[in-house]
Amino acid sequence: MFMSNKPVSISVVRRLPRYYRFLGELLNHSVQRISSRELSQRMGLTASQIRQDLNCFGGFGQQGYGYNVEALHREIGNILGMHQHKKTILIGVGNLGRAILSHMAFEEKGIEIIGLFDRSETLVGERIDKLTIQHTDRLEDFCRENHPKVAILCVPKYTAQDLVVRLYQAGVNAYWNFSHYDIAVHHPGTVVENVHLGDSLMTLCYKVKEMDERAASGEEARE
Amino acid sequence: MFMSNKPVSISVVRRLPRYYRFLGELLNHSVQRISSRELSQRMGLTASQIRQDLNCFGGFGQQGYGYNVEALHREIGNILGMHQHKKTILIGVGNLGRAILSHMAFEEKGIEIIGLFDRSETLVGERIDKLTIQHTDRLEDFCRENHPKVAILCVPKYTAQDLVVRLYQAGVNAYWNFSHYDIAVHHPGTVVENVHLGDSLMTLCYKVKEMDERAASGEEARE
Repeated sequence: MFMSNKPVSISVVRRLPRYYRFLGELLNHSVQRISSRELSQRMGLTASQIRQDLNCFGGFGQQGYGYNVEALHREIGNILGMHQHKKTILIGVGNLGRAILSHMAFEEKGIEIIGLFDRSETLVGERIDKLTIQHTDRLEDFCRENHPKVAILCVPKYTAQDLVVRLYQAGVNAYWNFSHYDIAVHHPGTVVENVHLGDSLMTLCYKVKEMDERAASGEEARE
Repeated sequence: MFMSNKPVSISVVRRLPRYYRFLGELLNHSVQRISSRELSQRMGLTASQIRQDLNCFGGFGQQGYGYNVEALHREIGNILGMHQHKKTILIGVGNLGRAILSHMAFEEKGIEIIGLFDRSETLVGERIDKLTIQHTDRLEDFCRENHPKVAILCVPKYTAQDLVVRLYQAGVNAYWNFSHYDIAVHHPGTVVENVHLGDSLMTLCYKVKEMDERAASGEEARE
């Protein structure tokens, strides 16, 4: 299969996990082939959008035969780097950190959680699955010995700022960031994926307000 | 202040929560005025981007005087609908649901949680703050009596599908969706904000892989 080397736009990359999920479900239902039209109907995208997206990576379909579900699923997984082993630490084992630990299928994505850290003395020493929560004072030593590549930050903004300086110096340059600290602005050499729950909720608030305004103006128009 | 009525693009809307957070922090530090240049440096955006964004809503700055932080913060809050009261229910009070309940500043955003629901008999009856977890069988009755407008879905995809049909019929048409069920595709009349943690993590995996490949090709080039 031809694989293009030119960089793929981030908007295409962001759609790939959704393709991956859909194809995984089709596999679970023993579907072996699917046309771009069928896939588009299930995903709420246009067929041409799907063809365009998948062409960015050299194309996977055969005209008239549709896509081989298993091959496409595997290839998208490869593109996403899901089979690449990534040593990862999680910092901040409060409610959010615990929810993420129990909720995410990390192994499927090549992510191995090798350390849990918190600065609360009441949490240090607690075991979660096979790991014992360590004090954040131990971060530098731990990184020197174990070389984690990714850090998951479930801490407040003011804590994150100091932590990232330390982690970055200790060689961690990839972050799954639940804090509101703008890592990429201050550390241009890192890769960061932000989950800003508060921003998402505020965006929903906007959409609700807009929907109400639309409904109200529709009612006025009918009067 | 002039407020434009033309619809604002979703990409601008998505930047507003970040402005709102930054301005809130400036307020906490008693900063009263800020130039677009200063704001841009702190936020990692260009000054012209900021002027463009805020002009979508009729503009807030005075040439040469910068922005009034408090007025801008309040106006963005109004635009986001943060002061509008929204009755909200949360469904799925597992790890993720609990983390969200304890983590989010709902009241600040005009969101009042009026009901918690789960289908697990072991959770039904448990109190969290002022609310008692109810069985999802009670959803229809509850909606008829209390008219919630927003639902937060912390349930798996296969549960979400059935729940949304019931909630939609019961008059709930706004969703903060942590499941992988594509609500908007199947219910075009709703407003939805998705938080797909798995997709975010897969996007990070892609970025890590790409960073490694870049580093590897840089090393080759130096040889």
